[in-house]
Amino acid sequence: MSEIQPLEFLKKTKAQIDAHIFDFLPREHEHPEVHQFYEMMLDYPLRAGKGLRPAICLLICEAFGGNPRNALNTAAALELLQNWALIHDDIEDGSDLRRGEPCLHQKYGIPIAINVGDGLHCKMWEMLNQNADLLGYELAFTIASEFVQLSNSIVEGQHIELSWVDSNRWNLTEADYWTMCVRKTASYTCITPCRVGGLIAGASRLELDLFIDLGMNLGVAFQIQDDVLNLIGEERLYGKEIGGDISEGKRTLILIHLLSVCSQAEADRVIEIMSQQRAEKHPDEIQEVLDLMAHYESIQYAQQHAKRLAQKAYTQFNRTFSYLPATPAKGIFLDLIDFVIEREY
Amino acid sequence: MSEIQPLEFLKKTKAQIDAHIFDFLPREHEHPEVHQFYEMMLDYPLRAGKGLRPAICLLICEAFGGNPRNALNTAAALELLQNWALIHDDIEDGSDLRRGEPCLHQKYGIPIAINVGDGLHCKMWEMLNQNADLLGYELAFTIASEFVQLSNSIVEGQHIELSWVDSNRWNLTEADYWTMCVRKTASYTCITPCRVGGLIAGASRLELDLFIDLGMNLGVAFQIQDDVLNLIGEERLYGKEIGGDISEGKRTLILIHLLSVCSQAEADRVIEIMSQQRAEKHPDEIQEVLDLMAHYESIQYAQQHAKRLAQKAYTQFNRTFSYLPATPAKGIFLDLIDFVIEREY
Repeated sequence: MSEIQPLEFLKKTKAQIDAHIFDFLPREHEHPEVHQFYEMMLDYPLRAGKGLRPAICLLICEAFGGNPRNALNTAAALELLQNWALIHDDIEDGSDLRRGEPCLHQKYGIPIAINVGDGLHCKMWEMLNQNADLLGYELAFTIASEFVQLSNSIVEGQHIELSWVDSNRWNLTEADYWTMCVRKTASYTCITPCRVGGLIAGASRLELDLFIDLGMNLGVAFQIQDDVLNLIGEERLYGKEIGGDISEGKRTLILIHLLSVCSQAEADRVIEIMSQQRAEKHPDEIQEVLDLMAHYESIQYAQQHAKRLAQKAYTQFNRTFSYLPATPAKGIFLDLIDFVIEREY
Repeated sequence: MSEIQPLEFLKKTKAQIDAHIFDFLPREHEHPEVHQFYEMMLDYPLRAGKGLRPAICLLICEAFGGNPRNALNTAAALELLQNWALIHDDIEDGSDLRRGEPCLHQKYGIPIAINVGDGLHCKMWEMLNQNADLLGYELAFTIASEFVQLSNSIVEGQHIELSWVDSNRWNLTEADYWTMCVRKTASYTCITPCRVGGLIAGASRLELDLFIDLGMNLGVAFQIQDDVLNLIGEERLYGKEIGGDISEGKRTLILIHLLSVCSQAEADRVIEIMSQQRAEKHPDEIQEVLDLMAHYESIQYAQQHAKRLAQKAYTQFNRTFSYLPATPAKGIFLDLIDFVIEREY
């Protein structure tokens, strides 16, 4: 495994996690509507995601001397969490595309899509219940408690973001962005995957708590890079419409930077465009915002910011856990930190 | 307790459950948006519900010789389940009123309301996790597994109903209605409340399984009575708009009966009205459907059907569990069965 690249590892892990999820989710039912419901629950999990969160969970488990096979079920539950949350997020944000295909609510309407998201949400807890047989009651409960904290964090972060949209609020600071992004993204992208991986390997409470700060840095770096790709990525690789965040009026670090450095007149114009309903926005107006972001180097600013955060996470992991043996898992995790900010999808 | 009436018991239980829920749900947060989110999560639980499900859970626990205090947390989780499911249902059905007030999405918009429902959903699992300290890991896990089954059942039932709306399907039989209603309503109104109450009291697997048939009968009776009240109830007591099910195009047993006995021309006209978008429906058209339901005695038919099912449940409980001592709890549970079909709200 010593020569394996992070992308290869992600691919391999994704295949394992997919197999576990498809084995777990129900496929057939004699009642045609229930059968259709099962098919819809499989829709997002079948689309090509990166599998980053389960990979982090398995790597940390192994780096701490645990058997990653014991973490597979928990890692798959992280993927289910992402899927139910994405189905609901896509409705809440009025998104069009997800992983290169129309969002679930664009295919089946909002009512059915909300309910499919709820169905996958229930399946996540069902999967976590399986840990009782695999890991014993006590550890299974501790892991479920981590997922409870994570879920609470995600809905709070999502509410912060939705309430900005609802109140048409644009005077946001980097601290506001941080507060939202830690709850909404960093918690499930890094903090919890690391913590549950560590838990399964028998890491101490102290070690687990060290993942909070590291996970915040890496998770926010991941989200900033995601927002950068949304503006300058290739749609084919990225799987969402490029510039979609501008259509959606999303409050990214890039936008917060732009509004803090441009002229008042430019800021007024940017807010005017960003505040419009998605359907009312003309491609020229989206380009206008993009041009200003280029002019004020807001995208570069965000990229550098993400890089700094990822480097911090890299150093934190390397120094804090210097006593862990130099296993392939440890090496791949460090490579993954680089991947987070260098990826194109 | 021997003289207590079912309504008094419901009121007393509701107060206990409310206290438990309000003690559990977060109330304050320094971050204003998170604080607002907490307030929104309290909105539905603060509205006056009947508290029927927790009452059933506590009564069965006591009737089987258990201490109802041990079931309080689980009973409260049933109430949280109802609240998250209702928030999402109200969006999916395009409802206006819930428990006498505008639905959550009418107050705050669909995106925020979906997320508040998700928040309460997470809180339900958090509450169930508390059972580990109260009842030990094994029993807590068994109860959580009951909730997993219940949740799966609810989303499947909801999908069946939503897919009828989506495909504009009206040629439904009583068997179709039964399949949907058992999953969507009977499971969480009766089957699971009885089973988890029994589990906490130490009832046997055989005893628990006897609640499935009984719970289906009583739960479907409850839903039919709910649909009757929707058409002929008093809005002040009932808390939803009267005739709202016709506005929403809901497939009730009453409607299925009407379509099966009226003339083809009348059926065509009823389907034409029912299929219209809610906003397009004129009050005269709703009255037209109501008049046909009166003419063909469809409401009476449904009421009699509900009565028969409830009587069946009454006899089943009385005969099957004749060996249970004649405790007040047993008496109140039997009274509650009568209440289910005689209630006006």
